[in-house]
Amino acid sequence: MKCRVCKAPALAKFPAHNAAFCKEHFDAFFLRQIAQTIKRYQMLPGEARVVVALSGGKDSLVTALALRRLGYRVEGLFIDLGISEGDFSPASRRACEEFCAAQGVPLRVIGLKEEFGRTLPDIARRYPRPCAICGVTKRRLMNEYTLSSGAAALATGHTLDDLVAALFANLLRWDLHYLAKGLPVLPAEPGFARKIKPLAFQSEDEISTFARLHSINPVEALCPYATKAKFRRYKEVFNALEERSPGLKRAFYLGYTRNARRFRENTARPLLAACRACGFPAAAPVCTVCRVWREVPKEPPAFSL
Amino acid sequence: MKCRVCKAPALAKFPAHNAAFCKEHFDAFFLRQIAQTIKRYQMLPGEARVVVALSGGKDSLVTALALRRLGYRVEGLFIDLGISEGDFSPASRRACEEFCAAQGVPLRVIGLKEEFGRTLPDIARRYPRPCAICGVTKRRLMNEYTLSSGAAALATGHTLDDLVAALFANLLRWDLHYLAKGLPVLPAEPGFARKIKPLAFQSEDEISTFARLHSINPVEALCPYATKAKFRRYKEVFNALEERSPGLKRAFYLGYTRNARRFRENTARPLLAACRACGFPAAAPVCTVCRVWREVPKEPPAFSL
Repeated sequence: MKCRVCKAPALAKFPAHNAAFCKEHFDAFFLRQIAQTIKRYQMLPGEARVVVALSGGKDSLVTALALRRLGYRVEGLFIDLGISEGDFSPASRRACEEFCAAQGVPLRVIGLKEEFGRTLPDIARRYPRPCAICGVTKRRLMNEYTLSSGAAALATGHTLDDLVAALFANLLRWDLHYLAKGLPVLPAEPGFARKIKPLAFQSEDEISTFARLHSINPVEALCPYATKAKFRRYKEVFNALEERSPGLKRAFYLGYTRNARRFRENTARPLLAACRACGFPAAAPVCTVCRVWREVPKEPPAFSL
Repeated sequence: MKCRVCKAPALAKFPAHNAAFCKEHFDAFFLRQIAQTIKRYQMLPGEARVVVALSGGKDSLVTALALRRLGYRVEGLFIDLGISEGDFSPASRRACEEFCAAQGVPLRVIGLKEEFGRTLPDIARRYPRPCAICGVTKRRLMNEYTLSSGAAALATGHTLDDLVAALFANLLRWDLHYLAKGLPVLPAEPGFARKIKPLAFQSEDEISTFARLHSINPVEALCPYATKAKFRRYKEVFNALEERSPGLKRAFYLGYTRNARRFRENTARPLLAACRACGFPAAAPVCTVCRVWREVPKEPPAFSL
């Protein structure tokens, strides 16, 4: 197995691209693919400042590294959930800190404890679905930080496999709201920062290879609350199909991006109004973050002195 | 395991319906489901005359039996492809003849040999993709016969599993033309008979149970040209998903029928014109049937006396 470019012994084969590469040319190929994704979807202007949401996992660290190497001014953002079980939050934070120190990337850490006086486990004791609250909370803090930082966009490490699994899940349910939102870029709207997914066309095996190549040490610990069994199952389905038809995942997702406008529907969700407490867009009078973390009551007090 | 209706010992469990039934009440349930499908999609007016495309397989025979029991005037149509290998065509024909004789259903047989002077194996020697030609040819003959018979519609035995697998295949490719066409009913258009799929919401395990219950003997022989490995794989994928989430296939296909209009696109395919030789709608000056079976040249002769 030889490198497609230089014919040296190849590092690995990438059937989706019908190619094998040596270290050097895989690195160049991987970055070129991301540059193409950024260009095709007009994600970022050259040398823009971009906030990368870091979890400590390989996908988000690779996102930061790739963007930095493509000449963007990257800032890392880590949300410390305060999950000490299995050393999850501390280990995740360390992975981010080590990566950022090694790569010279500034890192901003926002801790739930510091922000709201409580951690995710504090909340998980009272709410049956902590993962949903965690997702809303992280998205809000990342969005708020990106808006206040003046950066061009918030980048997340969603991979081709993530997006294909989510697309499939939403197609199974024909959830029009989410079907319209699975695009590689979501433009800024009032109250929402621009969101980009630079790894939207990179599969997880490519990302793992790139991470190993650059000695990235992602966190090994798993979130003790993690479930997502369905998601994992959908990824397995598509990996099995991809094995028989290399390139299937990319073609499926690319076709989706060309047809996503078909799923736009004005009436799909209630219009967002400003949260009574924090002013951010919310589907209810009080947003989930204020309700759960700041204990703002759903209804205003009946009278006040 | 007891029947949901009468609490007698149940014949089988149907997780998609969260129910088990005895023989009698499964029979009633199965027919009621089909009656609901027919009503929901306004497939047929009461007591209408309907041509059922029979292959000799369980799905098409069950379609004919169910429609007859629901009070429609059913006529069977069998296309004899003339495939003697593995006794395929003769055995398929016998299965249809036996079923129709037992059920008092009139059967019309159209043989390729009688119609065109040649069989499918004759054609398969010259064309690399006989399955595509076979499909086009059967659809044409069934359509032509239904139009000339004055029946209200042509019914085919496509099952929920068939439609889900086809839907998935078309979504993977985002083939807009076929995505718009996977509906349980396609209205009549100039040159096209109305087409209905009464088993669109019946899964293959339910259909098999109904077939056994009524001592239907479908043909066992398999077409020696059959391929469709991908289709089988997609069916396996959805059966595995269904096992974890009973009702998933029905919900997926139902959601599709509610959203299929999103895939209509005027420019997706060239408009059909009349075939120069037979006058039926065709995407080329001469339709595939006339070109392959009647050897009509693609271009008219350069001059004529």
